[in-house]
Parts: sequence; C-alpha cells; structure tokens
Amino acid sequence: MAAVDATQLRELGQQFRVDSIRPAAVAKSGHPTSGMSAADLMAVLVANHFRYDFDHPKNATNDRLIFSKGHASTLYYAILRAVGAISDEELLTYRKFGSMLEGHPTPLIPWVDVATGSLGQGLPIGVGMGLAAKYLDRLPTRVWVLCGDSEMAEGSMWEAFEHASHYELDNLTAIIDVNRLGQRGETMVGWNTGVYVERARAFGWNAIEIDGHDVEAIDRAYTEASGTTGKPTVVIARTIKGKGVKAVENQPGWHGKALDDPDAAIAELGGVRNIRVEVTKPEPAEPHRFPDGPLELPRYELGEKVATRKAYGEALTALGAARGDVVALDGEVGNSTFAEIFAKAHPERYFEMYIAEQQLIAAAVGLHARGWNAFASTFAAFFSRAYDFVRMAAISRVNLRLTGSHAGVSIGEDGPSQMALEDIASIRAIHSSVVLHPCDANQTAKLVAAMADAEGIVFLRTLRPNTPVIYDADEDFEIGGARVLRSSEEDDVTLIGAGVTVHEALQAADALEEEGITARVIDLYSIKPIDADTLQAAAEATGRIVTAEDHYPEGGVGDAVLAALAELDEHPRVLKLAVREMPRSGKPEELLHAYGIDAEGIAAAARQLIGSEVTAS
Amino acid sequence: MAAVDATQLRELGQQFRVDSIRPAAVAKSGHPTSGMSAADLMAVLVANHFRYDFDHPKNATNDRLIFSKGHASTLYYAILRAVGAISDEELLTYRKFGSMLEGHPTPLIPWVDVATGSLGQGLPIGVGMGLAAKYLDRLPTRVWVLCGDSEMAEGSMWEAFEHASHYELDNLTAIIDVNRLGQRGETMVGWNTGVYVERARAFGWNAIEIDGHDVEAIDRAYTEASGTTGKPTVVIARTIKGKGVKAVENQPGWHGKALDDPDAAIAELGGVRNIRVEVTKPEPAEPHRFPDGPLELPRYELGEKVATRKAYGEALTALGAARGDVVALDGEVGNSTFAEIFAKAHPERYFEMYIAEQQLIAAAVGLHARGWNAFASTFAAFFSRAYDFVRMAAISRVNLRLTGSHAGVSIGEDGPSQMALEDIASIRAIHSSVVLHPCDANQTAKLVAAMADAEGIVFLRTLRPNTPVIYDADEDFEIGGARVLRSSEEDDVTLIGAGVTVHEALQAADALEEEGITARVIDLYSIKPIDADTLQAAAEATGRIVTAEDHYPEGGVGDAVLAALAELDEHPRVLKLAVREMPRSGKPEELLHAYGIDAEGIAAAARQLIGSEVTAS
Repeated sequence: MAAVDATQLRELGQQFRVDSIRPAAVAKSGHPTSGMSAADLMAVLVANHFRYDFDHPKNATNDRLIFSKGHASTLYYAILRAVGAISDEELLTYRKFGSMLEGHPTPLIPWVDVATGSLGQGLPIGVGMGLAAKYLDRLPTRVWVLCGDSEMAEGSMWEAFEHASHYELDNLTAIIDVNRLGQRGETMVGWNTGVYVERARAFGWNAIEIDGHDVEAIDRAYTEASGTTGKPTVVIARTIKGKGVKAVENQPGWHGKALDDPDAAIAELGGVRNIRVEVTKPEPAEPHRFPDGPLELPRYELGEKVATRKAYGEALTALGAARGDVVALDGEVGNSTFAEIFAKAHPERYFEMYIAEQQLIAAAVGLHARGWNAFASTFAAFFSRAYDFVRMAAISRVNLRLTGSHAGVSIGEDGPSQMALEDIASIRAIHSSVVLHPCDANQTAKLVAAMADAEGIVFLRTLRPNTPVIYDADEDFEIGGARVLRSSEEDDVTLIGAGVTVHEALQAADALEEEGITARVIDLYSIKPIDADTLQAAAEATGRIVTAEDHYPEGGVGDAVLAALAELDEHPRVLKLAVREMPRSGKPEELLHAYGIDAEGIAAAARQLIGSEVTAS
Repeated sequence: MAAVDATQLRELGQQFRVDSIRPAAVAKSGHPTSGMSAADLMAVLVANHFRYDFDHPKNATNDRLIFSKGHASTLYYAILRAVGAISDEELLTYRKFGSMLEGHPTPLIPWVDVATGSLGQGLPIGVGMGLAAKYLDRLPTRVWVLCGDSEMAEGSMWEAFEHASHYELDNLTAIIDVNRLGQRGETMVGWNTGVYVERARAFGWNAIEIDGHDVEAIDRAYTEASGTTGKPTVVIARTIKGKGVKAVENQPGWHGKALDDPDAAIAELGGVRNIRVEVTKPEPAEPHRFPDGPLELPRYELGEKVATRKAYGEALTALGAARGDVVALDGEVGNSTFAEIFAKAHPERYFEMYIAEQQLIAAAVGLHARGWNAFASTFAAFFSRAYDFVRMAAISRVNLRLTGSHAGVSIGEDGPSQMALEDIASIRAIHSSVVLHPCDANQTAKLVAAMADAEGIVFLRTLRPNTPVIYDADEDFEIGGARVLRSSEEDDVTLIGAGVTVHEALQAADALEEEGITARVIDLYSIKPIDADTLQAAAEATGRIVTAEDHYPEGGVGDAVLAALAELDEHPRVLKLAVREMPRSGKPEELLHAYGIDAEGIAAAARQLIGSEVTAS
C-alpha cells in the first residue's frame, strides 16, 4: 500500500457513501446508490494513485478523472469535499438552481473537464485525453475513467476499447463498476465479470478482475495499471449497488432515487465523517509543444475550379504549420475530406480514427479539453453518427472544429446515404454552434483560419465537386458575415444561396437580368451566426427573397433567413427552395435540377414571386 | 456440398466479379474491388444456402440478405442479374438518374429491405430481423448479413454482437469480408482474423475463420452456421480486395473507383458469363400472429394531472391489446418512458434493448422491414445517439415510431445532459418525418393510436412532469392538426405553445386578459406536418404571434411557424421564445422561468409586441 492504509481507505469509502447520500437527501433526487457501489474504487484512487493539483486544474501535468457514469455525481462531489475543493455547505447545494453541482457533472465545476451524463462518452473522451498526454504533451500523466457496467452496452465504449489499444494508451485506465443493476433491472452481463475480462482482452487491453470493495485488491490493481506498458488497463470491479445500506443494497428499484430514510442509512454507515484527503501533486514538467510559424494560407486564382473540401485540407495544413496547437483527426475518409494533406505534412499531429465517428468526436473533445486545437473531419452525413457527442460537447463548453464534406445532392452518384441533407439543421440547433458553408476555395481557407479561434461547436460544410473561385485570395471573411455578390439600387428580388447554390444563384441572376429582372445575390456563408443586417437590408430593398439550399427544407438556410427577418416590421415574401424529395443517384447537375435548386429553379422562383404580385395587383 | 458444386461456384464467383466491374465501368464510379473480395462468399450463399422467393419478396418465410457493406452494391446487383431478377441491360443502368440501382442499395429495389451505405448499420438491423423471425413470426428463416471489415470499427457492430447473443439469435449469420483495406489504407486489425474470432467469441458468438475464396470452406461454414443453435454465427473470411485482377488485387488506392482497364480485367477473369442461379424457395409456412382486439384507449379526467410519458405507456399498452402487430422496445429506461407498462402486459412483444440506442433504432428498423409495427422509446435526448440510424431509416422508407420522454428543461434537476433541446429540429429535418408534441394525457393517447398508421419517421415528444388534462377523452386529434384553445373576434395576439408551454400560454392568456389584452392560444401539438391554415388564420386575425417552446431557438416550434407563414402576403410580427442559454439543474418551474418560457415570459413577450407598436404609432 502507498500513503493511505487499508483501514483509512475503508473509512474514506464510507465517507464517500455517506456523502453520496446526504446531498441526494437534501435535493430529494439523485443517484446515491450508484455512487455507493464505486465509493471504495474512488477512495483508493484519490488517496493513493491520483496525481492532481486542485489549485491548478488546467495543468497539463495533472492526471485526469472522468466520471463516465456521470449520474454518480454525488460521489464525485464527495471527493471534492474530501480534498477540500468544496465545503460541506456547498456539497449540500447539489441540484439547486445556481449551484455548480448539477445533477450530472459539467465543467461549471473547475475540476471537471467534460460533461457526462449521456452514457458511454467518458471512456472515448478519455481516449482523446490519453492521445494528448502520450503523443502531444508527452507527459507521464494518467487518465482514469470510472465507467458503469450498464454503459458497456453502448457501442462507443468498444470504439474506445479498440482505439485505446490501437494507440497503445498505457496511460489510460478504465474502472468498470460492475454493480449489476441498471436503471430498471439487471444488465445483460450481470455479475459475470469474466465476460468483460474476455472482451477487454480480445480488444487488446490488460484486464484485472477484482472485488470492488476490497481496498487492497483495488490498490494492487491500480499499481498494476500504472506499471503496465504498451496497452491500456481495465479494472473490472465486482461491486454492490447501494453497498453498506441494507434497505437498498443490491436491490432493484433504487436507481436514481434519494434514500427513503437517509438518517438511518448514514447511521448504518457509521455517521458523517470529515476525513481530509491530501491528493499528491504531479511532478512539475513541461509539456511538449510544436513550433508556431507564419500563416501562409493557400491562394487560388479567380475562375480556377477547386473543391472546397480540397481547400479545407490545404488550409488546415497551412494552419498546422502556423500553429503548433492544431491537430487533425479523420474517420478513415481523409482522401475524401482531404485531411490526408495535413496527415502527410504533420504526421505527429494527425490521428486516424477509422470508421468510428463517435470516437472521432470524443477524441476531439478530449484533445480540446487538454488544450489542443483539434479539427475533426468526415463526410458531413456521418457526423450524424456522433450527434449525441456533439450535443454533449456543447454542455462540456469545449470548442470543436468539425468539417463535413460531401454536402447535399451535389455529391451525385453515391446516393442519399452519403448526402448530408439534415446537417445544417441538426448542428444549428446545438447550443453555441457556428455553421459555415463556403462556396469557394479562398473563402474556405479564410474560414478555416477563423475556425481555429472561434468559440463553441464550429461546423464547416464543404463540397465534393469543384466550384469556381469567385473571391480574391486577399478578401477577408469573418464568422457571422455574408457577402453581397451583386446589388443595385433597383433590385427586384434577392437570391440567397450558400455553398453550391451560390453559383446557381449567380447564374440565375444572369438569366433574370436578360429578362430585365435585377437580382441581388447574397452568399450566406455563415448560417449561424447570421448576418441579420445584410438580410434585413435586402428584405427592405427588394421585398422578395428566394433562398436556395442543398439541404432539406427544415431548419436550414431558408429557415435561418426567416428567423433573422421575423421581427421586422415589414416582411418580404420568401420562397424557400430546398431538397423536398428523397434524392436519388445521378449526376450532380441532374440532381440539382431535379430538386429545383439549380439556376433554373432559382430563376423560376424569382419570376414566380414577381409574377404572383403582378397578377394579384 | 449441396446443389451447386465447387467448380460451378467458382465460376459464379468469377461472374460476380465481372458483374461488379461492368456497371462501375459504365458509370465510371462505384466500388468494384469491394464486391470482388466478397464474390465467392455470395456465390456460395445464393447458390446453396439462401432460401428466397424472388417473386414474393415480402414473404415472411424468406431468408433475408443485407449488404451491411452497402458500397459493394455492384455485387448485390450482380446477384440480382444471376437470379434473373434484373436483366443485363438493367444492371448497366447502375448509378444513372432514375435507375433503381443506386450507388448504395435502397428499397427502391423490391428485394432490398433496408438502405445501407452508412457503415455499421446492416448488422444491427439484421438483429431486428432476427428478433422478428425467432420471437414474432416464429419461422425458421435466416438472416444473412455481409459485413465489411472496416465497419467493424463502428461501435454499433458490437452493440449488434452483444444483443444478438443475448437474444440467442441462431438465425443470424454475419459474414465478415476481411479484405484488410479500407478507403484510405489498412484497417486496425488488418488480416489478423484471429482478433475477430476472439472478439466474436467473447461476445458469445460461434466464430468460424475461413479463406473467403475457398468455396468449399465457405460452404461448410454456412452449413455449420445454419446448424448452430442457441447463438449466432460469424464467418470471418480472409479475402483479397480486387481479387482476380492483378492491377488492383490487394492494392491500396482502389477503393471506390472504377477500374482503369475494365476490358482487360474482365478478360483476366475469364470474360462475361451468363450463369443463371436458381435460388431455392423457402418451405411454405404461416408466420405466427398475435390476436387483435378492440381498441380501448386510456381515458383521463379533465383537471387530473398526468405525465404525457405515462399516457404514452398506457396508450401503447391498449394499442398492443388492439393490434397484434404492435411491438415495443426501450433503451433500459422503460420505467421512465413507461414502456414498462407495455412490457408487463405484452411480454412476448417487448424487447429490452439496454443502453444501446443505435441498436434500439436499428432493431425497430428491422422489425418494420419485416412488417411489425415497432414503437421504440428512450429519453428524447438519447435519440441523438442514433441520429444516423433515423436518417438512414428514412432512406429505407420504413416507418418508425419513436417516443422520446424527458423533453426540455421541464425535466428539472437532472440537468442538460438529460434534456432534449435539439430533438424537434433534428428530427424535423429528416425526410418523411412527423413530429408530435402533446400537452395532455388524452391527446397523447389519441396520437399514439394515430402513430400506428402513420407513414414515415414519427416522433412523439413526451414530458416528464405531470401536466393537467385539458382535453376531453372523446376529443379527436389528427396528425397535422393544431387546436385553438381560446379565440375571439378581437384577439390582440396569438400565443403558440406545444407540450409544457401550452399550459404556460394558457396562464399567460389569463394574466393578459386581466389587463384587457385578449390572446388567442394555439396548441401546436403537430409540429410537422403543421396546420398552416390555423396559423395563417391566427396571423391574419391578430397580426402578432408569440411562440414558446422548451427547445433551443433553431429549427423548433418557432421556426416551423415562421416557415408556415413565409409565403403569406401580410406578415405577423413573431416573437420566438425558446431556451437561449445552456440550462442548469433546478426545479422545472425555476428553469421555465429562468429561460423565459413560462407564463410570465410569454405574457411579457405579448405585451412587448403590442407595446412596441403603440410606441411606434
């Protein structure tokens, strides 16, 4: 045993149980029994193995502790009290409005890196932190993740198992609290802990099976985990839910409930304790840093045809040369998203995440939480695979930079499974999100550079086909802006596009001009935040707006425009063009035409808006 | 060997290779090398093991074949040609606009049950089909799933592995085409097929490792799979990508590309063949059916306080008694969603899917594809975990019935990780979706009954807290409707809510009435499709609208209302109330107030709309 002996550890475990019960008793809700099963596991960890400076939580030298089973939050808060990070009074503010001690942990608490509470996310995020420590910071810090056994049913956990072993993350320890009982009954595996051992070993991990209430066994397991090289370790701990309180011990029906008689339960556990734990601080060390340099973004000639996805890859590579904190990840499609250009230029800062989009995003979250500026890419359609991870990243208040290629029907023959058509809507709805959709290569490059400093969940939507360069390489583009490409004093109608439809709108304006209809054309490259001033000015000037988007009609460009104009006194008439059928395979131009979002469709909509009024008047 | 001998099988494999190359050559795109690795695996299957009546694809007695690696679509189309389902001419329409032979298979093809092309989905959908065959239809049909090795990195595959073994799906065979090469390089496992064997066995499967080009070994493996009881079987087949054509065989850089010299490749493979395969039809048999009965929906008294999630569970149980085709699944939160009521009443038609939301949705897809009317439930926030599966379900043209509980900040203390605040936006954006959000128990019951016959992806959003019953049990509610709860000739403003905000809007109307402001109140329980007539009438009558939703501002109720009003000649002014901050833990009423969507916030917005005009005029 290290610093704290078994007797003291057992006492600390009891304190953690009591302190799991007390805040839930005050709040009249919470998950005390889920904390009680893992109390000994955490007592041994914080007393003897965890290396952390609570005064400087952001230090790269600190170990990390993630409660993947976030509902056991009272146990985490009990730890904070024991280490002196929060007072007893604060512990009892649990779940009260305004308290940082929410139902599930969030980074409102200075010592929490990422929010948990959607199960199966803590371990894949831990993989990201492990990558940061081993390959980027290059420090001997460890990542400890407390997992529930119920969440082992989430596929994301097995993505984490595979990636952690692939990347030989010997700094990562998963601790599975096998208390057998989920929310409404037994898990599929129950107490057959050998099953977890076999699975973990088959995924390349060192697996240690213990009694999760035997503090000496726990201590030995953590020592073995810390000493194991070349592979991660999982401690599979058989535990008892509600351990120590007969009324709830190993009983179904006690998940997510305060105890009926907390005073009796606390008495049964030996009463309130005030053990103070001194967590060992890590040895001082400097994290590795990659050099910065001048930013030399790629430049594209006007009229050249370049896919914005290609510009992404080239701009990101330039950004990587300029900033040592930039890291890239991709989901096995780097030759399509063009993340491969970065991978070749900066191999030490590139992580291949294979076809595992949940792990892709989770790793990006973990890297950001450790201060690295990770850019993650895949087909935009496949970010939908990790939507819950994006949602939780917003709650984690981390910054994400997501680049999704192959947007919309403009991809052509591969068909609807590969087409992102809900992505703008789904990511716009994420709190703190930024949604960008450039139409040319120079604009893409500038926006990629801007992404690196943006706050929140930043999504860049890129195109598969080559599109003409329409902006000079010296033009600047800011997040939240829009570009008026054509305008005059006498505009009859405003055409608004983003991405591929900008080029269609320009062609439509040409066609309309021949008929004597003057169109204002707006490139709405920043869909969120949106340039309401430019839109409102156009609405006031023209009174008629056509929006065209390579996306389904709900929640995309058109709806964003409508929302930006909602509170105007005078409203324009708005015709929203979008993909209103389930698209088919076909050539890009055939599909843009079939779904009415090509130049012809846009021009027809403009005529309809103008004509219907003529008829009406 | 059964009907077809090894020599013929090898020839058929060569035909499949040639026919994987030919359509891609015409289309100048596609994934021929991915079909070529699995050609022998499929030759042996369709010639000797697959039981299918191509004239009656919907027959419950038919085996099922799912191409989980949907990009190998030319191989599937080659099979269709060999069995005489399509002509050679039709084969060569691959990827042409209007052809049913899209880049990835979709159910536009009569013999395709579900769309694939987003990797890692075919196997979990196969689990749903296996459940249908074994526990519902109770027929000896088999489900065969061709998987790629790259997609084994998707966690959803391991959800499928765990659930298939938990449910002892001995009718399910996964065939992993281990060709080593993904899109941009080698997989994490490569040709170490033993790794897959260990993992599969650790997950409770029978695993058979073979050379995937040895037709006799393949034949033996399928025979063993069909004869294995109590557990599913996986055939782990070591194969060569691009097998048979030296220029591409086992070479990186040939994923998703037509061959450079297709004629030479076809010659190397021995030329075009016209082998016709006679697929054995299944033995005639009648599927098991559960009895129907009268529909007796639960009835709630006016003024009673009942959570809509509870009404869901009770109504679904009644529906289950009325209709033998109704099945329920839940993601280990049945005591929160109240799916547990159904589980107790109809245990033979309930499947616990544990905390594996991707498998939850995939199983529902598989059940629907086999004609069962599956209702899947979890917290609404956690459907985000399976968003890609919902997206693909729309491409599969299956009906889904999803019920998500714990919507919005009204859940209270559990905090933001458990609150659905993007769900309306994300599901509205899905093609063919229906989004319902009832506010009382009787309305919920009627909508649950309506869901059973609705087309498309139907999402019902339910509430955690008890809400007062405001509708008589005899009132009818149709999908696409809205209910005007209050109106008069002189309404000054319209208040629109859905779910919990309906009750807040009613209270706001009371408060405003005391000040002499008359408010129309609309319950927008059907957010998509939306009752544009009722909204437009309100807009014309009052000219001012306040929308209030327990959801983020983008893509929800407010944006749906704006979209419905966009093309009006005269526009109302619309003030959109929504959750505009990252919410905290707290009491439901504290949170509704803090984020401005309670009665007070709604009344204040109404006053602002009226007052600003008074000031302006």
